[in-house]
Amino acid sequence: MFERLKAAREVANQKTELKKLIADCDELIKEPGQSVSVGIASRALNRYQKLDFGSRSEFYSQLATRYEPNIEHITRALDSHKEKRSPESLIELVRAVEPPRQELLRRLNRVSSGTAVIVRMREEILNALRSAPALAAVDADFEHLLSSWFNPGFLELKRLDWMTPAHLLEKVIQHEAVHEIDGWGDLRRRLEPDRRLYAYFHPTLPNEPLIFVEVALLNDMPSAVAPLLDRSKPPEVETKRYKVAAFYSISNCQPGLKGIHLGNFLIKRVAEDLKLEFPGLKTFCTLSPIPSLAEFLLKGPKWKSGRYTAKELSRLEADFKELQPNLQNLSKSNAVLSATHQNRLTRLCSAYLAQTAPDESVRSDPVAKFHLNNGAILERVNLGADHSSKGLKQSFGMMVNYRYDLDKVEQNHESFVSGTTALSKAIRDLIKA
Amino acid sequence: MFERLKAAREVANQKTELKKLIADCDELIKEPGQSVSVGIASRALNRYQKLDFGSRSEFYSQLATRYEPNIEHITRALDSHKEKRSPESLIELVRAVEPPRQELLRRLNRVSSGTAVIVRMREEILNALRSAPALAAVDADFEHLLSSWFNPGFLELKRLDWMTPAHLLEKVIQHEAVHEIDGWGDLRRRLEPDRRLYAYFHPTLPNEPLIFVEVALLNDMPSAVAPLLDRSKPPEVETKRYKVAAFYSISNCQPGLKGIHLGNFLIKRVAEDLKLEFPGLKTFCTLSPIPSLAEFLLKGPKWKSGRYTAKELSRLEADFKELQPNLQNLSKSNAVLSATHQNRLTRLCSAYLAQTAPDESVRSDPVAKFHLNNGAILERVNLGADHSSKGLKQSFGMMVNYRYDLDKVEQNHESFVSGTTALSKAIRDLIKA
Amino acid sequence: MFERLKAAREVANQKTELKKLIADCDELIKEPGQSVSVGIASRALNRYQKLDFGSRSEFYSQLATRYEPNIEHITRALDSHKEKRSPESLIELVRAVEPPRQELLRRLNRVSSGTAVIVRMREEILNALRSAPALAAVDADFEHLLSSWFNPGFLELKRLDWMTPAHLLEKVIQHEAVHEIDGWGDLRRRLEPDRRLYAYFHPTLPNEPLIFVEVALLNDMPSAVAPLLDRSKPPEVETKRYKVAAFYSISNCQPGLKGIHLGNFLIKRVAEDLKLEFPGLKTFCTLSPIPSLAEFLLKGPKWKSGRYTAKELSRLEADFKELQPNLQNLSKSNAVLSATHQNRLTRLCSAYLAQTAPDESVRSDPVAKFHLNNGAILERVNLGADHSSKGLKQSFGMMVNYRYDLDKVEQNHESFVSGTTALSKAIRDLIKA
Amino acid sequence: MFERLKAAREVANQKTELKKLIADCDELIKEPGQSVSVGIASRALNRYQKLDFGSRSEFYSQLATRYEPNIEHITRALDSHKEKRSPESLIELVRAVEPPRQELLRRLNRVSSGTAVIVRMREEILNALRSAPALAAVDADFEHLLSSWFNPGFLELKRLDWMTPAHLLEKVIQHEAVHEIDGWGDLRRRLEPDRRLYAYFHPTLPNEPLIFVEVALLNDMPSAVAPLLDRSKPPEVETKRYKVAAFYSISNCQPGLKGIHLGNFLIKRVAEDLKLEFPGLKTFCTLSPIPSLAEFLLKGPKWKSGRYTAKELSRLEADFKELQPNLQNLSKSNAVLSATHQNRLTRLCSAYLAQTAPDESVRSDPVAKFHLNNGAILERVNLGADHSSKGLKQSFGMMVNYRYDLDKVEQNHESFVSGTTALSKAIRDLIKA
Repeated sequence: MFERLKAAREVANQKTELKKLIADCDELIKEPGQSVSVGIASRALNRYQKLDFGSRSEFYSQLATRYEPNIEHITRALDSHKEKRSPESLIELVRAVEPPRQELLRRLNRVSSGTAVIVRMREEILNALRSAPALAAVDADFEHLLSSWFNPGFLELKRLDWMTPAHLLEKVIQHEAVHEIDGWGDLRRRLEPDRRLYAYFHPTLPNEPLIFVEVALLNDMPSAVAPLLDRSKPPEVETKRYKVAAFYSISNCQPGLKGIHLGNFLIKRVAEDLKLEFPGLKTFCTLSPIPSLAEFLLKGPKWKSGRYTAKELSRLEADFKELQPNLQNLSKSNAVLSATHQNRLTRLCSAYLAQTAPDESVRSDPVAKFHLNNGAILERVNLGADHSSKGLKQSFGMMVNYRYDLDKVEQNHESFVSGTTALSKAIRDLIKA
Repeated sequence: MFERLKAAREVANQKTELKKLIADCDELIKEPGQSVSVGIASRALNRYQKLDFGSRSEFYSQLATRYEPNIEHITRALDSHKEKRSPESLIELVRAVEPPRQELLRRLNRVSSGTAVIVRMREEILNALRSAPALAAVDADFEHLLSSWFNPGFLELKRLDWMTPAHLLEKVIQHEAVHEIDGWGDLRRRLEPDRRLYAYFHPTLPNEPLIFVEVALLNDMPSAVAPLLDRSKPPEVETKRYKVAAFYSISNCQPGLKGIHLGNFLIKRVAEDLKLEFPGLKTFCTLSPIPSLAEFLLKGPKWKSGRYTAKELSRLEADFKELQPNLQNLSKSNAVLSATHQNRLTRLCSAYLAQTAPDESVRSDPVAKFHLNNGAILERVNLGADHSSKGLKQSFGMMVNYRYDLDKVEQNHESFVSGTTALSKAIRDLIKA
Repeated sequence: MFERLKAAREVANQKTELKKLIADCDELIKEPGQSVSVGIASRALNRYQKLDFGSRSEFYSQLATRYEPNIEHITRALDSHKEKRSPESLIELVRAVEPPRQELLRRLNRVSSGTAVIVRMREEILNALRSAPALAAVDADFEHLLSSWFNPGFLELKRLDWMTPAHLLEKVIQHEAVHEIDGWGDLRRRLEPDRRLYAYFHPTLPNEPLIFVEVALLNDMPSAVAPLLDRSKPPEVETKRYKVAAFYSISNCQPGLKGIHLGNFLIKRVAEDLKLEFPGLKTFCTLSPIPSLAEFLLKGPKWKSGRYTAKELSRLEADFKELQPNLQNLSKSNAVLSATHQNRLTRLCSAYLAQTAPDESVRSDPVAKFHLNNGAILERVNLGADHSSKGLKQSFGMMVNYRYDLDKVEQNHESFVSGTTALSKAIRDLIKA
Repeated sequence: MFERLKAAREVANQKTELKKLIADCDELIKEPGQSVSVGIASRALNRYQKLDFGSRSEFYSQLATRYEPNIEHITRALDSHKEKRSPESLIELVRAVEPPRQELLRRLNRVSSGTAVIVRMREEILNALRSAPALAAVDADFEHLLSSWFNPGFLELKRLDWMTPAHLLEKVIQHEAVHEIDGWGDLRRRLEPDRRLYAYFHPTLPNEPLIFVEVALLNDMPSAVAPLLDRSKPPEVETKRYKVAAFYSISNCQPGLKGIHLGNFLIKRVAEDLKLEFPGLKTFCTLSPIPSLAEFLLKGPKWKSGRYTAKELSRLEADFKELQPNLQNLSKSNAVLSATHQNRLTRLCSAYLAQTAPDESVRSDPVAKFHLNNGAILERVNLGADHSSKGLKQSFGMMVNYRYDLDKVEQNHESFVSGTTALSKAIRDLIKA
């Protein structure tokens, strides 16, 4: 009885707080004085943070409807500009179209803790998008502003190692998305002299890595992930023997920054730094998962029309036919394949990745799309590279090396955008019939 | 002969470089890959920095015309949105209206040195505006982006003192705009324990103060500037005797950030910090110049209609009539005034400042407008406060104290915006007939 | 065969290296030029670090014999000084007596890594002392110099928390000597807001904590250790509720600094810092082990003659007689005692600690001696305070609170030195018959 | 009348304070507890700092007499050690001889500000030595301890430049002893990219440079000082052109550290650092004054017997005879000399420096002694190198380059110590008859 009363009171309370938050936002948008606006923004952010999930959802809906640009106003401004064609009429038009929520967010961001709150707001809006597609325009405004605030020119690249404060390393353990870190001993192996971990930070979030990349310094291009993570293996400290820098893991720490492409530039920056530090490095590559391979093959592969010659296609179909009975099995356990079957599986995988497209014209592997669009070369496909159950399930244990030739990154990227994927000779030979 | 050839070659060279810069900009706007775009942006900024004054002016014109939004495109997007009213059609419309130069600037800013270059570009555009009013829309875009990047949430407040690196102190000496600093000895007096100097910094410009404020910790509200700067006076170190914090100088260091109101918030932040450090402080005020007073009176004062009663107006006119013969003289030397004349001059000055308006409805003193809009109270007008020739020329040696009552800043600001200036009792009594 | 050859060669090699090291040391002592001596010292330290255990032992013996002061020389200098009584003759005498190995160590210390090596040398010499008592004079010289270099005026007190670099926290885990830290999760509990960890550092060893102390901020004086270390208990964050600061662990990290009493001053420094940060703290105490209690009782307690009255003594003897049959059992498991037996055991423990002496006149508990000599009060004895097998074995699970009354530390210390231990009223009452 | 009373009271007050200080010192020496001793030491240092000059002098006398070792005690300890020859008896003897003031100073140093006070004490004792030679033994103890605390292994080398905090640069301006710095503009020239300034710091005195050296990076070995200090000359920024690093000024900042040879090692450390940074550097040299040259010649030169052949001597005497009439004049103004006279003066100067001895056997130039003992080569003597009146007065405007050949520093030092000065071929040829 008492509990019900308390709940009812809480509901009423939330309603009042939401109303006050909206009132604050209305005031904030109108407020011409900057000094005063920081106080209002601070009050509004505090209020927002006390809202429960339901009230926050309601707040996001209000962002969509209440702080939309006004169509009549736009129409008038456009008509006026068509007539006058003056700088002033253009300024007027631009102002009329910009959704007022953009200015609202910019003003909330005047409080120093504002950026962190806005990033978390976006995370919730992204989650809500499926059930509330009307939020798409709101999300677009968040993405627009966040990509302006989190541009690479504002970010700071930092190397994390065993001298790094514990609370930052703890966040690395939490956020590692590709190859899970099993405690501090596991992490330490990844911070030894022959391993590197770099993260991007934003000045207003000094305690929050945004994205980090893990690198292994090796003698040869790696063909399997287990040796890279093996804690029992002593680190290679002879730096002259480092020939290859292998990027074996990239993890985003901020779901609210989805679409703000931090990773693209991170790899290139780190590669350039490593090249300076170890002039002996010859190869910069990844050891990457192929998350969509099993699904592609198990559903029956669809080859992109025009990508392969008839001869090539018929061989790919033959490969698939031969392998099909084994596929379910391969996705569950480490089965031993004959050399012929190994060859067939490698070719199917290579052909799948080689037809990756920059657009939606064909089903593409997301990791492949990321690296190829980033200017990498599809270098080598590795069987038995990841024996974990996740690795078996998503790609029959296969992994791939994308190689970054620093001098050709721009050129490869442009080729990819205009329809041609950069392939190593080995891959080309394997596919060519 | 040879010189002329060289000059001609240089002209041709500049033309080529400008063309290449435009080509880079075109490419940069279209480029979807972030990693690649940083390389292009870096190249473009290098090219820009090699252009001479004329070519840079031409580049700004191109920003105005080449990277304008397209009106047909806008019209179509608006029609489509009127029909669909969907999030997607809105996103499309917003994109169509945003001037492409905004995205261009955001992408140039992906290079870490980009922000500094963009601030200097804006400085030149502001200078060019008078002769090239068409740049107004370009300037509006710069201001829009810079105010998003230089919002107070991103800025860092730092106290500068004698422990501060010399190169930063040197910049303070260069940029002090109100009371010139005559060398390092002069500066040192302003960094003693009873003086404070605070500056705002942006994370990407760690070596460039953006704006700084100088504060004197005193026993009484100051009525003249000379004692504050007097190097021979020993510092007051008995902190319990600090009752008044007087802001006696605010200087902007970055002309390219004009209109990005950094100062408003700075005073409030510093006042709050000082209050925490010295709980005995009772009064936060300025000792400010009145740059437009002499001009207002010498041209024959215009009183805002409706601001003063008929009785008050007739007394102000009498005051002016009496003083007029002396005014030219007063603006040149430290003349001795009779008590009656002192009273008249004080009243005229007070009445001028008391009619300061937030808009252009009446001629207003810019410093008065800044502080009153910021929520300050017009507290006291001081005769003989600044004996420098600049002080005599602009305000017959008068200065004014604006007082910040931290609890009433918002309220005062709102009154000012709606037409009522906050006045101290002394000022009200003086004006009231 | 080959192995034997190799070993023989290694033996010969070690002999050569030792000889060269001695030659370097001879040269170093004679060398007047400081700049040159740093080079020699560096060479000598490198050579030393390549010696095996046996050769290092031989080196320490040489320190004892080869770098001793010369008795004839001393005799002559003393005779000369007796005759002249001049400053010069005194300087000569002081120089004649100082063992040359002191100057040798000072010169080895001119290399920046020298201090660390010398601390490790001392660690080995301390270990060797039992079998080689002749090293006592060498050890005295090491202790003399190290206590000059590691004096509290040179040390830096640092708080370690979750923001501290991981490599330093790892050293805390390794060196915790009182209550073992079981991994990073365990450590983190000890760094929460209601726990504190402070360490002393020397400027030349920035990566090596010398000694650290762990503190719990509590509402009441603690009577058992388990709740302090319990990871499942949420931290108390209401700082106003902190009444007691309990020092529950002090650990030395550098065995080579034995006898350099860093801990004494550390507790007082930390207590003063905490008092400033939390003015509500009323009590500064420890929760300390009693490592020698079981041995004292199991061997049959010896009471210090004159310390207790005949009546008190007879009651202590009665207590012991009653408890004796249970003692073996109590040192192995958590036996339940009757209230009477609890009382007896508490009294015996209190009486044992209360007779702690500053000298060797009676067997004393080392921890008691440390805190009482440091000016603490024997405040309370706690039954069942430490259920670990170590706790049962050394003190039947008992622990003790020593209390630091910051205003009486000097006075208590002086009393203790002159034979009177500071006791709480409760302890006094318990013992008094 | 009142003034006299006040003075008398002050005298009495000083006497009381001195007595209390001595009482504190007595207590401090006896105190076994470290924690307690820090409190006493702090009290004693405060008392000392309030003493006037006379009382402090009295305190130093007491250090000499009251805290001397006891001769009877020493005699007994020596007799006992002769008998026992045990480590314990040796320890006892060493303790008996060490002046108790050493332990007193070590204990005063337990307070963190102690080191600075002790350095200033020493400064006063050094000044007092002439009139109070009995303080020599006290001074020896200060020097002994300070050289242990300020050994190069504890010092930190820092480069000072325009990014350095102003208060440190101000100290450089104050302490420059060789070529006066005329304000901040003058200093700035010495911090440009082609100039370097390095200083040594002790961890307990982070705001006090101990000694600093100024270096010019040049194309050729410098023959005059004016071009090095010329503010109007733009800095040479082409680092590949740096062939010579010229140390043109070394200044001690702490008179209390006299005899603690910090400079010797500083030059070598800086040279090694510069060699790493600019591998193109071929020559490390000084441009040094010859402070004693004029005095040597004006008094009539005394040649070291056995240093020069009869033929050489007779030529030196002829040189002197020819030049003598001009010498007074040369020490006052920039007289023009004939080529022959130039040659003669250069030879006399070279011969004077070439006979520099490590001991007191012959009058030697102190700067020459410093560098030659440090392992430098007497490279070149420069006429007209310093036109300042100080330069004319002390050395007829001559300066000298000492060259540091990093590989031969040890060897040259050893030669010098055993009687042979390292000379360049040019100098050798000039002297050789």
